Amino acid sequence: MTELKDIKAFAFDVDGIFTDGSVLAMPDGDLLRTFNAKDSFAVRMAWMNGFPVGIITGGCSESILNRFKMLGVETENIYMLSRNKIVDLEHFCKRNNLTLDQVAFAGDDVPDIPALKAAGLGICPADAVEEVKQASDIVSEEPGGKRFVRDLIERTLRAQGKWKFDPHGSWACLYPDHLAAFADKTGKNV
Amino acid sequence: MTELKDIKAFAFDVDGIFTDGSVLAMPDGDLLRTFNAKDSFAVRMAWMNGFPVGIITGGCSESILNRFKMLGVETENIYMLSRNKIVDLEHFCKRNNLTLDQVAFAGDDVPDIPALKAAGLGICPADAVEEVKQASDIVSEEPGGKRFVRDLIERTLRAQGKWKFDPHGSWACLYPDHLAAFADKTGKNV
Amino acid sequence: MTELKDIKAFAFDVDGIFTDGSVLAMPDGDLLRTFNAKDSFAVRMAWMNGFPVGIITGGCSESILNRFKMLGVETENIYMLSRNKIVDLEHFCKRNNLTLDQVAFAGDDVPDIPALKAAGLGICPADAVEEVKQASDIVSEEPGGKRFVRDLIERTLRAQGKWKFDPHGSWACLYPDHLAAFADKTGKNV
Amino acid sequence: MTELKDIKAFAFDVDGIFTDGSVLAMPDGDLLRTFNAKDSFAVRMAWMNGFPVGIITGGCSESILNRFKMLGVETENIYMLSRNKIVDLEHFCKRNNLTLDQVAFAGDDVPDIPALKAAGLGICPADAVEEVKQASDIVSEEPGGKRFVRDLIERTLRAQGKWKFDPHGSWACLYPDHLAAFADKTGKNV
Repeated sequence: MTELKDIKAFAFDVDGIFTDGSVLAMPDGDLLRTFNAKDSFAVRMAWMNGFPVGIITGGCSESILNRFKMLGVETENIYMLSRNKIVDLEHFCKRNNLTLDQVAFAGDDVPDIPALKAAGLGICPADAVEEVKQASDIVSEEPGGKRFVRDLIERTLRAQGKWKFDPHGSWACLYPDHLAAFADKTGKNV
Repeated sequence: MTELKDIKAFAFDVDGIFTDGSVLAMPDGDLLRTFNAKDSFAVRMAWMNGFPVGIITGGCSESILNRFKMLGVETENIYMLSRNKIVDLEHFCKRNNLTLDQVAFAGDDVPDIPALKAAGLGICPADAVEEVKQASDIVSEEPGGKRFVRDLIERTLRAQGKWKFDPHGSWACLYPDHLAAFADKTGKNV
Repeated sequence: MTELKDIKAFAFDVDGIFTDGSVLAMPDGDLLRTFNAKDSFAVRMAWMNGFPVGIITGGCSESILNRFKMLGVETENIYMLSRNKIVDLEHFCKRNNLTLDQVAFAGDDVPDIPALKAAGLGICPADAVEEVKQASDIVSEEPGGKRFVRDLIERTLRAQGKWKFDPHGSWACLYPDHLAAFADKTGKNV
Repeated sequence: MTELKDIKAFAFDVDGIFTDGSVLAMPDGDLLRTFNAKDSFAVRMAWMNGFPVGIITGGCSESILNRFKMLGVETENIYMLSRNKIVDLEHFCKRNNLTLDQVAFAGDDVPDIPALKAAGLGICPADAVEEVKQASDIVSEEPGGKRFVRDLIERTLRAQGKWKFDPHGSWACLYPDHLAAFADKTGKNV
C-alpha cells in the first residue's frame, strides 16, 4: 500500500464515488448525476497542483464528460463505458507516465475490485459493497457523494504540503465555451 | 412461498421499489425518477444470467421504458399504466413460459397486494405500507430506492451460485442507439 | 375543529406539504418539484371518492398544473401565485358549494396561518415552522414530502369507510393528451 | 462582530449555503441547484424590508441568475464566477453604500474564509469545513440547504422587529416575464 505522501495521481469510478449512486433517468435514456461542490473544489485543487485525474466509469453521458472537463480533467483521461476497469487504469497510467503504484484508485462496487487491488492505494467509501471493502486498502468513513472524494484528495494534498488555496489562480480558463454561451444568453459579462 | 434457489424470474413495481417513491414533475406532465447504480448493476447481472425481468408499474414515461431497455429488460416485459397488476403479472408469466410460482414479485403499495399474494415469492421494502407488509412473504431490511432490488437479486443469484461478475461480458450491445447518438454529439469514440 | 369523519374536501399548500420544500431551479426561472408516489396515490383515491381537492400555492409553474391535473384535480381548483391564501380558500369553498368548516387545509409556513385557522381542520407536517404548529389543530408526525398527504387523506377516508382500492376504476382517462403524446413518441400502445 | 440588530445587508455564497452542496450536472455542462422554499421566503422578506442581498458564488449558471432575480435580488448584486470573494464583497458594499461592518456574510468552504473574516458578521452552516468554522463568528445549528438562510434572515429581522408578513405585499411584480410566458403557454390567467 502506497502512503498518501507518495501518491502522484488519482483515478475514480463515478457512481457511488462522486455520487450516492443515484441517477436521474431522462426520457432519451441519458442518466444525470448529482455531484457535490466540496468534492468538485478538491478535484480543482488536484488539477491546480498538477495531479493527473482519471475517471473510469461504466456509465456513458455527455454530462459526465462536461462535468469533469470543467474541473480540469483531460478528455483523454475520461474512460466511459469501461467494462474491464483494470485495462483502463493501466492505459491511464501509461499515457500519464505513471506506475500503478503511484495511483490512488477509488471504487465502490464489484467491477472495481481488480483495479482496487492493483492500484498503489485502493480506497472505497463507507457504503461500498462488502466485497469491495475487503479488497480495499482503506475504507473511508465518508459515504459516496458527500465528501468521500474531498476527504481523499484533501488528505493527500495535506500530506504533501499542497492544500493551499490561491484566490488568484485562474479557474475560468477551464471552460471558455460554456462561458461564452452563457454570456450570449444572459448578456451578463463574465 | 418459493425459496430463492428456485426463483426463475423477477417482476417489479417501480415507484417505491427502484426508487424511494420520489418523482420529479416536469412541465409537460412527465415524471422523472431517480434510480440507483447498485440496483441497476443487479438487474444487468440477472439479464446476463438469463432471468426474465418484468416491470409492472402504474406509471407511464419514456424514461421508464428507456431505463429498463438499457438494463436488458425486453420491451414486451415492461407493463406501464398497469391498473390490475395481477393480470399483467399473469401475462408476463405466460409470454415467458413461467408459472406464478417461479416468480418473485416486489411491490410497496396497495395496488400491488394481489400480485404479491399470487407470486411464488412476494417481497416488499422496509418502507412499504402496512397492508403490503402483511401480504408479503418477506419484508426486506432495505427501503425502496437504496439497495432493495440489489439485495433481492444478489441473494437469489448467490443461492443459485450465479453471482459471478465477468468483465468480458458484452454490455454495450444493450443500447446501440444511445451510443451512436452520444458518439455523434461528442465526437468521442465509444 | 371538524372531525375526520365529517371532512368533505381537502385543500393543500404545495411546497413543504407535497414536497420537503426543495425546488429545482431551471435556467429559465421555472422551479421543478419532487412529489411522492404514495401521496399521489392518496390524491387519486380522494378523487375517485368524489372529494374536491384544492391546491393553493404561492408558486407558479406548468409542472404544478400538469401534476395535479393528472391526479384528477380540476384546473379551476388549482390556485397558483396565491398571495392571500384565505381569499383563495374561500373562493374554493364557494365554487365547490362547501363551507370552510367542511374543509381540511394543510400548510407549513407563515403565509398559510390565516387559512389554517379558518379551515374546519388545520393540519401541518412535523417540520412546519413554529408559528404554523401553534396555529394548527393537528401537527402530523409525518414531515412534508414523505407521507404527510397520504396520512391525512388515508385517515380521513378510513374514518368514512372509503379507503377501498378498486383495480377496475378507470384512471387512464385522467390524462388523454399525455398518453397520446407518449404513444406517438414511443410507438408503444397505451 | 456586529450584532443582528445592527445588520443592514446580507451576502451569501450559494453552494452549501442555499443548497446542501449538490449540483445536478446537465449534458451541456450547466449545473442545476435545489433550493428550499423556506429559505426563499426569507430572502423575499429581506427584500420587502429593504435589505440589500448579495450573491457571491464561484458558480455560473442562468439558473442562479433567474432564481435570485425572482426573489428580488438585483442583477448587479449577483456576483458569479467569483474567484476572490473579498473583492466582490467590497464591490457589493460600495455600490450599496454599506461598510463591511454592516454586512452579514455566509460561506461554507475555503474560498469564503477571507470574506467571512472581513464581514461584520461571518456565519457558516453546521456542515461547513473545519477551517471555515474556525474563521466564522457564528456556526449555525442548521446545515446548508435546509433552513440555514431562513434562520439567519429570520433572526436578524426579528431582532429588528421586522419579521412581519403582509399578504397584501406585491410579490408578483418580481417576475413579469416569467409570468407572461407562463400565461402564454397555459392559457391560465395569472
